[in-house]
Amino acid sequence: MSERLIVVSSDCHAGLRIADYKPYVETKYHEIMDQSVPLQMEMTEKAEESFLMKEINDEWRAPIEQELKGAWDYKERLKMLSNDGIAAEVIFPDGITEMNTPPFGAGLGLSPRAAVPELQWAGAMAHNRWLAEFCANDLSRHIGVASIPLLWDVQQAVDAVRWCVDNGLSSVMIPTMWDEHAPYHDRKYDPFWEVCEDLGVIIHFHSGPAPQPEYFGTNWPMEDRSDDLPGAMGVYVSEVMWWLYRPLTFMIWGGVFERYPKLKVVMTEGGTAFMLPPWLRLLDHNYTDIQFSAKLGDFRSHLSMAPTEYFARNIAIGASCVPRQDIELHSVLGEDKLMWGSDYPHPEGTWPNTAQYFKDTFSGLSETVGRKILGENAVEWYGLDRARLQEVADEIGPDLSIFK
Amino acid sequence: MSERLIVVSSDCHAGLRIADYKPYVETKYHEIMDQSVPLQMEMTEKAEESFLMKEINDEWRAPIEQELKGAWDYKERLKMLSNDGIAAEVIFPDGITEMNTPPFGAGLGLSPRAAVPELQWAGAMAHNRWLAEFCANDLSRHIGVASIPLLWDVQQAVDAVRWCVDNGLSSVMIPTMWDEHAPYHDRKYDPFWEVCEDLGVIIHFHSGPAPQPEYFGTNWPMEDRSDDLPGAMGVYVSEVMWWLYRPLTFMIWGGVFERYPKLKVVMTEGGTAFMLPPWLRLLDHNYTDIQFSAKLGDFRSHLSMAPTEYFARNIAIGASCVPRQDIELHSVLGEDKLMWGSDYPHPEGTWPNTAQYFKDTFSGLSETVGRKILGENAVEWYGLDRARLQEVADEIGPDLSIFK
Repeated sequence: MSERLIVVSSDCHAGLRIADYKPYVETKYHEIMDQSVPLQMEMTEKAEESFLMKEINDEWRAPIEQELKGAWDYKERLKMLSNDGIAAEVIFPDGITEMNTPPFGAGLGLSPRAAVPELQWAGAMAHNRWLAEFCANDLSRHIGVASIPLLWDVQQAVDAVRWCVDNGLSSVMIPTMWDEHAPYHDRKYDPFWEVCEDLGVIIHFHSGPAPQPEYFGTNWPMEDRSDDLPGAMGVYVSEVMWWLYRPLTFMIWGGVFERYPKLKVVMTEGGTAFMLPPWLRLLDHNYTDIQFSAKLGDFRSHLSMAPTEYFARNIAIGASCVPRQDIELHSVLGEDKLMWGSDYPHPEGTWPNTAQYFKDTFSGLSETVGRKILGENAVEWYGLDRARLQEVADEIGPDLSIFK
Repeated sequence: MSERLIVVSSDCHAGLRIADYKPYVETKYHEIMDQSVPLQMEMTEKAEESFLMKEINDEWRAPIEQELKGAWDYKERLKMLSNDGIAAEVIFPDGITEMNTPPFGAGLGLSPRAAVPELQWAGAMAHNRWLAEFCANDLSRHIGVASIPLLWDVQQAVDAVRWCVDNGLSSVMIPTMWDEHAPYHDRKYDPFWEVCEDLGVIIHFHSGPAPQPEYFGTNWPMEDRSDDLPGAMGVYVSEVMWWLYRPLTFMIWGGVFERYPKLKVVMTEGGTAFMLPPWLRLLDHNYTDIQFSAKLGDFRSHLSMAPTEYFARNIAIGASCVPRQDIELHSVLGEDKLMWGSDYPHPEGTWPNTAQYFKDTFSGLSETVGRKILGENAVEWYGLDRARLQEVADEIGPDLSIFK
């Protein structure tokens, strides 16, 4: 083993400024894009005021404006990766949080709320085209996660997955929330799971989406609205993990991994010691305990394995900028399940202090476990080119001193 | 201390057969009741087929048909309480699960989905009138939980609470889910919390409600529906506790207990070792940890105490027909927080085998803790007449041998 560690960030973000997506949007949508982009920017501005603290963000950004351009500028990107010691990265949309997002509501989360299916597809495919180009700079280092608005037309999603694979993208993201549409235990999605399994495409859910309009009052009948909503943010941070785990609750119980045993899923920015083990224990409890069946019937016979067995086989955790406490999750989940991430360029991430973070957080951890969480697990899960990444790591990777 | 234990069931159910509510419904709604009751019965029948296993229920009921009449027949009720050794009981609506429910969608859960506000109020008040009469047989033994459809008109809810107190009902139930209406962190509900605090009225949430239409596909666009939804029930049992805790997440973060420090809340049939401690740990983590505030701002300054401190002061747990494992929760939550319940006449309850259940479940538990969980905690929380209940217990209560 080399003295320099292969670090893979399982959670980075990249994207153009919204108006800059225009060359990647089909021309037939240009007119409506010109009309809707100013509206979307205004809404985003508003959301930033109530949801993300504008002053905090502005203050955080001011001194690092140049470096943040790595959200779309390839040269800056390489500098960022070098400084952080990252050999390869998994790339989600929505670069500088709310400033870089594809048009037509096709950003992180792919919320169906108020989305027009045809337009959301147009926005998502525009991002996918740009992302394929961006990653083509070096496919061994940049694993782009394409956006697939799965809820609308499953065949269109299947076709899009084939397009992605043909264009170097073997990871996809689907909506975390479905609102009034069919959840993921519905068999209508089977063709999508099937094409992903067949082509080795990895499905991603990224944390963040939650019913924000419910917390902040924007979806209630007008006469119900109050300007005074103390605690909305406390509710958000208390619920956000649950909304991330929810699609997997439906997929596991829905038998998706029973029918597609080789399907791979990642939940990103979801490795919290507080909720993950209890959620898994609960799923298994409901599978093995018979207390409920008195009036609910047998709801387990279509599954040949316990929920945590599917979890162990089919699901990995993107554990972004985790504190040491969450790294210790490896002892519960198995040491092959956690994949560290930097969350660049989000302010809650470790960038631009990743080197220091490594020292503070990994000190005293065994080298074997540390190597796995920092990179080797992702190399395995995503099937990356280890030899090539070791070459990169030998130039920029952190050394073993972080475990001292 | 007497040799015979005061047992209080914190979770029993009672209600008329739906059509029998007519004398309690205002006459102006009789015509619409005649039209809607057959529809509601048909829907209930359907729900029973997909959600509750009809054959299982029918088989369970056949030999105990007479005893189940205790859901509305007072003499049978007293027999049931005697046989179970229960001195006092907290009474929720929806007697024999789906067979006894107030009209106009005013049953357990008070779901706003597809409800007509005026009619749901009419159904709820009909039940409240009947319940007040039923409990008036012996107010020291029967604590009726009135139904308050809080989501629509807060002033109407305030007036109804006053009516309840005037009629012997000092406990109320409010909706567990609010759909598109304002959640409980909205200050529009303050007049309701205030009247409850002022009059010493205890607010209840009873487990069971969850987005069943989402699990079973009845709320999706027609073209999305599939007849094959494996796992719907597994998702239900895995999520149901979360939907019960959710209103309290909003109330705690919303500062309700900060503004109304004497307000009392019970979550009933919610004492599960699997989810309760992790949920509480998560709330406190979000209060004490500052990780998120990098971009979310300070969302804690309106709370002078940590979430679990409000929980300890303002919230009790109705722990229905719990296994021993969940009784051990007392060591986490404090031994004054758990209140046992029989869940009569639901098939998942301990009735009619409560005596045997006591022996199987409480064996080896300390008498002090056992007395609290079985009755003394409820006597305290609900302010019951201990001397009177000891008289009843001396006739019918279990003896200390259950702790042997």
